[in-house]
Amino acid sequence: MVGMAQSRIRQFVSDLPQGTPAAQVIRVLGQKGAMTAAQLARHTGLARSTVSMAVAELKDSLVVVEIDGASAPRVGAGRPGTLLTLNPSAGTCVGLHLGYEDVQFVVADVSHSFIDERKIVLGVDYTPDDALAAVKSCFTDYQKQSGAAASSLMGIGVSVSGPVRPDGVLMRGGILPRWAGLNLRDMFTKAFKRPVLVDNESNCAAVAEMKWGAARGHDDFVIFKMDVGVGGAVVSNGALVRGVAGGAGEFGHVSINPDGELCRCGNRGCLELYASFVKPLEQLSRVHKCSMTMDRAIALAEAGDAGALRMIADVGDFGGRGLGMIGTIFNPPLILIGGRMALAGDLLLTPMRMAFQRHTLIKQIDTNSATRTDIRMGKFTENDSLLGAVGLVLDQWHLPN
Amino acid sequence: MVGMAQSRIRQFVSDLPQGTPAAQVIRVLGQKGAMTAAQLARHTGLARSTVSMAVAELKDSLVVVEIDGASAPRVGAGRPGTLLTLNPSAGTCVGLHLGYEDVQFVVADVSHSFIDERKIVLGVDYTPDDALAAVKSCFTDYQKQSGAAASSLMGIGVSVSGPVRPDGVLMRGGILPRWAGLNLRDMFTKAFKRPVLVDNESNCAAVAEMKWGAARGHDDFVIFKMDVGVGGAVVSNGALVRGVAGGAGEFGHVSINPDGELCRCGNRGCLELYASFVKPLEQLSRVHKCSMTMDRAIALAEAGDAGALRMIADVGDFGGRGLGMIGTIFNPPLILIGGRMALAGDLLLTPMRMAFQRHTLIKQIDTNSATRTDIRMGKFTENDSLLGAVGLVLDQWHLPN
Repeated sequence: MVGMAQSRIRQFVSDLPQGTPAAQVIRVLGQKGAMTAAQLARHTGLARSTVSMAVAELKDSLVVVEIDGASAPRVGAGRPGTLLTLNPSAGTCVGLHLGYEDVQFVVADVSHSFIDERKIVLGVDYTPDDALAAVKSCFTDYQKQSGAAASSLMGIGVSVSGPVRPDGVLMRGGILPRWAGLNLRDMFTKAFKRPVLVDNESNCAAVAEMKWGAARGHDDFVIFKMDVGVGGAVVSNGALVRGVAGGAGEFGHVSINPDGELCRCGNRGCLELYASFVKPLEQLSRVHKCSMTMDRAIALAEAGDAGALRMIADVGDFGGRGLGMIGTIFNPPLILIGGRMALAGDLLLTPMRMAFQRHTLIKQIDTNSATRTDIRMGKFTENDSLLGAVGLVLDQWHLPN
Repeated sequence: MVGMAQSRIRQFVSDLPQGTPAAQVIRVLGQKGAMTAAQLARHTGLARSTVSMAVAELKDSLVVVEIDGASAPRVGAGRPGTLLTLNPSAGTCVGLHLGYEDVQFVVADVSHSFIDERKIVLGVDYTPDDALAAVKSCFTDYQKQSGAAASSLMGIGVSVSGPVRPDGVLMRGGILPRWAGLNLRDMFTKAFKRPVLVDNESNCAAVAEMKWGAARGHDDFVIFKMDVGVGGAVVSNGALVRGVAGGAGEFGHVSINPDGELCRCGNRGCLELYASFVKPLEQLSRVHKCSMTMDRAIALAEAGDAGALRMIADVGDFGGRGLGMIGTIFNPPLILIGGRMALAGDLLLTPMRMAFQRHTLIKQIDTNSATRTDIRMGKFTENDSLLGAVGLVLDQWHLPN
């Protein structure tokens, strides 16, 4: 019976002419998740009465349902009262994050409820076939446990490190160097026979922070991610700035020293060599004569270890140079710091903010609270890209393929 | 009689509800200038029949008139056939550019015809009062010669070097350091009792290139200006990225050497110190034992002078580092080079393009013609900011103040 409702709902949505109030309600609920009728009127720009009529029609067709905001389990903050949402039975969206040594997998329905989350560790330098097998196994396990039909899958979003060309090809510069040149969209479309959306991990992080996190309600912000690599994303007027070849926001590969060390991207002295945690951890490992992880380094710093404290402060100083450049180029109202390096919290952010002030053009003294750049941590430091991957599909599933 | 038509037209425009087809036609003709009915349908997104009805109404009200495209004197390329345009009698817009040692003044009517252009040399470090007196004298002379009534002035656009805060205050970092903190919007509003729009000179240049120049039809591009200072502007999805305090696009003040010389902006080793022509001309003056201008340096280089050639090539090399950073951060489809340094043409652009390839993330080898960054000269190297200042008003005059 769920299957029949599902196909009726999808037929209804795909038959709806673009631009009608009902289509606008579906687009906004798909992109933003559950909300009140008043919020729906504000986000669509339609009159309350027009929204009411459209919602009544969509409820009759089972496309929209009412839920209790306080009890709804979802990523965003809980909201009280009765909320309108797309019918979760309409289908599910899968998000994938292809990490440095693991693949993460998440399932959400169109009401923005997260149903399932898994991670498979594959080891450094895993192959595309390894990844595909892991994703298939996650999906099969999820189906077995949930009883969901394969037909419920509406689309797959894929997050990956490195620039992604508009046609789905992964470019050089990511943390999976052997994958460069591979068309990820074709690879997953072939395997799952469903629409596939691929984007850079920092762009995905921006989608997650905009939808459910620290950038909710912000149309202009920049993300600066410090992890195994350094990356970023730029949102201007509510839209991601992706670049003509998918290469926008690659802050980690701005050279800060043209005579510096060779970087994996083919340039020299890239910011990433100084502001990711790879080389700093190598140095700390040598000092402490043991293999060091970021978590261990942060614990040491919090316990007062001078070497760990200095390492984090130095990375923060270089990261702040990157922020200074972002300030001079975008002068954004908001910069969110993401990546596992951000777990160091104020140990990292304090030197970063100081270096930002030293290097950027518009300084604190020039501004008031309305014209100042706010620098803070993102909400989803560890799984922002994964959540954003599913967000790519939620933004698009209602459109004709 | 012209005065009566003018006030009737303006009354009609200000009474028109926003969002109606007629209001959309006025907005597009005001922003883009004369065009055919077919182009008008494309730019408004309205059906041809709807456009015809709206245009008929606007012709009856004298708001829109027909002109012969081939004979129309205007900045953009001439277009054949019958064009629709806003009635030039509706009023005029003034554009100002506050330069390093002079003030430029231009008058255009709402059909995008340029009527008058003047320049008054005031000398380095001129005061706001000097500038105001010069602009008033230009305006009085223009009125005497044209017989135009003071009431015909619809608004004033002002271009200035340095970040301009949303409230009209000029920030630190421009080439008129003693003006920092001055509210230019208030100053010109008080003097002329008309709406005033103030923006950074590079943002104005972007407006001019978008409207009439090398960025026509482009919704995403970056301007990189090399002159007494180095500046820039960013257009994303057809809109300028201005920044929360007006400080976006300040490529010249990204530090490329944190231990370098102090810059007028309060940072060290800014790109501007290496890629503007001020310091390089000082060096060339010393070598040639005479005071050197950019024009003279270019003439010397074209005649084969090794010092002038090397100076231009070195500036191009540093400029190309700036372009490399722009490529890594925006990966834009188009970068336009502006400013008087760009008059050196290929002597400058060839080393700049080479340095761009060396320093940017996505290289020529990674792309095809559809995903490549095109780097070329702007159309209006010398008066782009002035033209753009009038463009600010043309974009906005039809809106309620």
